[in-house]
Amino acid sequence: MTDDMDLAALQRRLAAFAAARDWQPFHTPKNLAAALSVEAAELLEIFQWLTPEQAAEVMADEGTAHRVRDEVADVMAYLLQFCEVLGIDVLAALAAKIDRNELRFPRKDAPRDPSSGASGGAPGGAPGSSG
Amino acid sequence: MTDDMDLAALQRRLAAFAAARDWQPFHTPKNLAAALSVEAAELLEIFQWLTPEQAAEVMADEGTAHRVRDEVADVMAYLLQFCEVLGIDVLAALAAKIDRNELRFPRKDAPRDPSSGASGGAPGGAPGSSG
Amino acid sequence: MTDDMDLAALQRRLAAFAAARDWQPFHTPKNLAAALSVEAAELLEIFQWLTPEQAAEVMADEGTAHRVRDEVADVMAYLLQFCEVLGIDVLAALAAKIDRNELRFPRKDAPRDPSSGASGGAPGGAPGSSG
Amino acid sequence: MTDDMDLAALQRRLAAFAAARDWQPFHTPKNLAAALSVEAAELLEIFQWLTPEQAAEVMADEGTAHRVRDEVADVMAYLLQFCEVLGIDVLAALAAKIDRNELRFPRKDAPRDPSSGASGGAPGGAPGSSG
Repeated sequence: MTDDMDLAALQRRLAAFAAARDWQPFHTPKNLAAALSVEAAELLEIFQWLTPEQAAEVMADEGTAHRVRDEVADVMAYLLQFCEVLGIDVLAALAAKIDRNELRFPRKDAPRDPSSGASGGAPGGAPGSSG
Repeated sequence: MTDDMDLAALQRRLAAFAAARDWQPFHTPKNLAAALSVEAAELLEIFQWLTPEQAAEVMADEGTAHRVRDEVADVMAYLLQFCEVLGIDVLAALAAKIDRNELRFPRKDAPRDPSSGASGGAPGGAPGSSG
Repeated sequence: MTDDMDLAALQRRLAAFAAARDWQPFHTPKNLAAALSVEAAELLEIFQWLTPEQAAEVMADEGTAHRVRDEVADVMAYLLQFCEVLGIDVLAALAAKIDRNELRFPRKDAPRDPSSGASGGAPGGAPGSSG
Repeated sequence: MTDDMDLAALQRRLAAFAAARDWQPFHTPKNLAAALSVEAAELLEIFQWLTPEQAAEVMADEGTAHRVRDEVADVMAYLLQFCEVLGIDVLAALAAKIDRNELRFPRKDAPRDPSSGASGGAPGGAPGSSG
């Protein structure tokens, strides 16, 4: 990974990019949270009518693959800009969440009471599940 | 930044976490895109009734700050897991998008035709704007 | 309100429209929930960079007003199609929710313990608030 | 359908409900669009880890069915409140959109040039598809 692909370096490029265009007044936490949500929905839109099998093959078509990477970049960009304006270290936040989830969702091979699982035997989906 | 907070290391921890719990069957690209979108909306939910001024102060309250970091971590976790299953390098995708946006949205001090701006003088919001 | 603008009639038109185009296989509950979420985000996108003042004036510009009405129609269309495939009476569901919320959020002029309000004096926003 | 389940009557109940609690200052178009998007994501959350087959059975479990109807009500409530504050007739907007889509997506049994279909033979999903 070259230096200009380092997360912190990209976050600085995004901040400089916005500053050079006088976009900071628009980049409030609320607006960036809305924009992040909109971009995540645009990524989902690519998949909305696909069967699970078709969805697994999206990268095989170059046009669709480009669109997927483009939306991924948009989500990441707004997430980093959101963290920038609020002073959040996204990697530290993620590491802390994984730590919490390792306690919350024991490994399947660890001894545990099977009745204590998530309601309805739902798959969960940590570390993304609320809590 | 310690090693375990490195992006690639966190992505590996997330993959191992899902594997140890047999969650991979649920982690299809379509499901992860949906989950990412849901988590982004949960982050937005924190801000939905706040004025711009209140939104700028969310980190001043420790309870709210924790909730914001937690949702940020969830968004990041699903984004990395989505990229993992589709073989996408999220930092490379973001760097490429910033490169494209630097061509697409010239700096304000660069000579340009003012009539060539985005429709309606909209602020844009690159690199998250569609295109 | 003429007959063809009646909610039930529009719901039937939407079902016939999908059937005539062999779209029912795509219109699973999960896909329609995703599509509904995507369209709601497209409506939000119109507002994401606007100040509250600008947002209040969106209908003054005919082009923007058309776009807003178009996205509103898309959200409504997917909501009705989602309800159709799952046999949900959307108006009955809404009436029941309002009934519950009238118990849950007493009127401001009704006697109540002021300390029992939502956390932090948050505005709430029922009947949309979770619960 | 009884009177109190009429769409216009429910819209009036929602407006009165918000007014009685002094919530109108929070119910700006931008905030309501955000809230609508958040509620749509909460509906999607119910389905995010389900297979298409499981998703088709959500109403068979009374607890899940209640949750689905509750989120449907929330989406409808915010959509109606959004339309109320902007003076949009949601049924007229939907009728107009269906009219446009009937021109845009001819019936499969109508004579048409097969090459004029949606790009990539994508399923479309009108009237929710953009445009």
